[in-house]
Amino acid sequence: MARKKIKSKDKHILALSTLVNHPSAILYEKEDLIAYDCDGFTIHKATPKAVVFPENTEQVAKIVKYCHDHSLPFLARGAGTGLSGGAIPLNGEVIISMVKMKKLLSVDLENRRAVVEPGFVNLKLTNTISDKGYYYAPDPSSQYCCTIGGNVAENAGGAHCLKYGVTTNHILGLEVVLPNGDVIEIGKNGIADEPGYDLLGLITGSEGTLGIVTKITVRILKNPESKQTVLAYFDKVEDGSQAVSDIISAGIVPAALEMMDKTAIEGVEAAAFPVGHPKDIEALLLIEVDGIEAGIGEQIEQILQVCRNQNVREVRAAKDEQERAAWWANRKTGFGAMGAISPDYLVQDGVIPRSKLPEVLSKINKISEESGLRIANIFHAGDGNLHPLVLFDARIPGETEKAMEAGSACLKVCADVGGTITGEHGVGIEKREEMRFVFKDEEIQAQTDIRDVFNPDNLLNAGKLFPTPGRCAEVKKEMKAAAIS
Amino acid sequence: MARKKIKSKDKHILALSTLVNHPSAILYEKEDLIAYDCDGFTIHKATPKAVVFPENTEQVAKIVKYCHDHSLPFLARGAGTGLSGGAIPLNGEVIISMVKMKKLLSVDLENRRAVVEPGFVNLKLTNTISDKGYYYAPDPSSQYCCTIGGNVAENAGGAHCLKYGVTTNHILGLEVVLPNGDVIEIGKNGIADEPGYDLLGLITGSEGTLGIVTKITVRILKNPESKQTVLAYFDKVEDGSQAVSDIISAGIVPAALEMMDKTAIEGVEAAAFPVGHPKDIEALLLIEVDGIEAGIGEQIEQILQVCRNQNVREVRAAKDEQERAAWWANRKTGFGAMGAISPDYLVQDGVIPRSKLPEVLSKINKISEESGLRIANIFHAGDGNLHPLVLFDARIPGETEKAMEAGSACLKVCADVGGTITGEHGVGIEKREEMRFVFKDEEIQAQTDIRDVFNPDNLLNAGKLFPTPGRCAEVKKEMKAAAIS
Repeated sequence: MARKKIKSKDKHILALSTLVNHPSAILYEKEDLIAYDCDGFTIHKATPKAVVFPENTEQVAKIVKYCHDHSLPFLARGAGTGLSGGAIPLNGEVIISMVKMKKLLSVDLENRRAVVEPGFVNLKLTNTISDKGYYYAPDPSSQYCCTIGGNVAENAGGAHCLKYGVTTNHILGLEVVLPNGDVIEIGKNGIADEPGYDLLGLITGSEGTLGIVTKITVRILKNPESKQTVLAYFDKVEDGSQAVSDIISAGIVPAALEMMDKTAIEGVEAAAFPVGHPKDIEALLLIEVDGIEAGIGEQIEQILQVCRNQNVREVRAAKDEQERAAWWANRKTGFGAMGAISPDYLVQDGVIPRSKLPEVLSKINKISEESGLRIANIFHAGDGNLHPLVLFDARIPGETEKAMEAGSACLKVCADVGGTITGEHGVGIEKREEMRFVFKDEEIQAQTDIRDVFNPDNLLNAGKLFPTPGRCAEVKKEMKAAAIS
Repeated sequence: MARKKIKSKDKHILALSTLVNHPSAILYEKEDLIAYDCDGFTIHKATPKAVVFPENTEQVAKIVKYCHDHSLPFLARGAGTGLSGGAIPLNGEVIISMVKMKKLLSVDLENRRAVVEPGFVNLKLTNTISDKGYYYAPDPSSQYCCTIGGNVAENAGGAHCLKYGVTTNHILGLEVVLPNGDVIEIGKNGIADEPGYDLLGLITGSEGTLGIVTKITVRILKNPESKQTVLAYFDKVEDGSQAVSDIISAGIVPAALEMMDKTAIEGVEAAAFPVGHPKDIEALLLIEVDGIEAGIGEQIEQILQVCRNQNVREVRAAKDEQERAAWWANRKTGFGAMGAISPDYLVQDGVIPRSKLPEVLSKINKISEESGLRIANIFHAGDGNLHPLVLFDARIPGETEKAMEAGSACLKVCADVGGTITGEHGVGIEKREEMRFVFKDEEIQAQTDIRDVFNPDNLLNAGKLFPTPGRCAEVKKEMKAAAIS
């Protein structure tokens, strides 16, 4: 097929268009770029210079090298479901979209690993291997559409990461295009504990600031022989929190231990997958255990007993796989469900020691009262990873600003009880300034020094992850201005 | 007590002596320094300038700052049980011994973590908390004397790391004195998945080249409700290897899955803890499962069946805790036991995909035949972490050299089948040149660039972990010269 001429006269766009397979693999017109002006963090928007769609590592390396040599800012983007703004082109970046690099390259059941391209959708991996008795453990709620490349960038978590660990615990190898266009391989042959420094861990969760991942070796697990799920309703949030502590203290490691509060329940019951949760309870726990068949019954009994000891109103195990699936669908669409009860919402992502759960939830309630904004809580209670969802209406002047302040205040509460500001959504642009809640200047410096080793010109995804030195107030103002514009 | 004057006239020794509690907390005389000229890797020796014994972080920071400001090479040392020479003062370093920093600072059962000083002995942690029902998982065979600080430096493994992961999977926080004397805290409050780059993973396993760890927050686990151990004897090593694969394929994740070959069995049966293993078998498997009581029996049955399907000569479960302990004592003293059948031994530490076990063992046999040196194999079969033990006699001219060549050849075999050169012992000085078996120049460069961020003057533990650019042949020659001197 003859190469169709592209309309732009921009020399960089012309040059970049020659590095991909076809002129249709680059977007540069304003109306096409709108879809790329934000990701799952919709409060801040910025327009990219162009969006290119490479199909292999070689093309990625050439695009990166071109950007590097011509001082063009650039960044990688997967499905764009990130919740902290990591893929927003703050500096008019060239976006390198990984959605065409979506192949499952190999599955090695004997050695329990698979190799995927970064644009491969998370849930597809489990769907592909489940009939052979295997699955991929990290399960962010967006797993039906988010990509494994994005999961690596953000070190994504999910409901079942309590028992099985977050993304970094399942990555065995990476092929990475460095910001100068060089290609390195880490964790060759899927052996994760390589000699030398742990570059695998360093790149995983680096939010797209150290390099662009073009190939990923993941660990796959054998399906548990059996799983069972319990649903428990509590009149008081303190009782639910205590049940969480007691389950863990009993030596049970549930596969998942999720909690929703009253406002969250109102949301999920008004949305696409209602299951009939009572609306007058203060807390709901969704608890799953898995493992060998013979041990499950005993653990379920223990869990039921712990809940009863904490004044549970109602507690029961799922009667069949269909009921279990319905409970999970209800939970997993929880964030989106907030749209059913509020025009807008801002999801936060703090981590606290489990023992501080009642204290922190009560302080978040206070923030809600003071701000006049409702805050729903849907979260991974077992590992203390909170998701306060601040409900607001962006059409009301000043309310976006107020929501951002309330969200930041929630993170301050988490940091102050010895926790931290993100468990699985990343810092992105959203929590840059909140990094100061948990890091001293020297500690941030040690990290930006490492970034400078990989990314000395800071052309790759600049302005993310770290606070701007001395610019805290100014940045906040800019973000607010953008938010209300 | 009056400060006793020290005898040295060296201005640095005088200055360093004022930075510790007492003049007895610094060694500088030749006869005192001999004990510090090597670690568990005894083939290479070098004399330190002095050995200082700080008692707290402040003293460590002052010593480091003094060394930094006066361009004195320095390194940290724990119990000195490391097997790759990481604590050998190649450049006449000031050794900062951590043995006086051996406090257990806190135990937080509710949040499952403990804080220790680096000189705290590994096994003491489990011993201290076991009556409350908890333990610390990483269990190197030297755990009765090695320190947790050293475990962090080397990212130590152990028999039970198959199910529970190596040291890096159990470290939640670190206090680190950087090579300029600055002190940073990583993983504050024991929250491992912090925002920003994974410095925790980067420092863990960095073999003492990025900083000196002065405080460690570790994860502690609840004791499994039950454990059971199986011992299996195989006439053919291929059958034993196949049983390893079959157990994992059956979906069982044993807590430990160890293998010994014929030569190894000869050694352990001649040493301190014989248990009566037959001497004419080619392979022995020691398999442990743990978890909730109800599930154990079923798994043991499956394991027995797998072994029977692979022509096992004899297989049985331990009849009581005493028998189980005897089997483990026999296994855990395996390296030292080689002393009973050989004047000297060199332990290697390769990793391979499990499926390559029979192929690799047969190639190691060939190396043994060709070198004329016996090679025993005691290893973590479940995770493919081999420990070929090359038996030799250093008194015979040229035999040390031959043993080192045979050891290196074993690692080459591991690298060539898609494995790597160390699973848990580290690179140290021993395997510096073998790093080239698994890393390209750019990949080594990316790592030394990171080292230079932390350790720009390379005063901290220089000459370890990475090959010397272009000096391969020369370094080998130096090591050989030292070995035979």
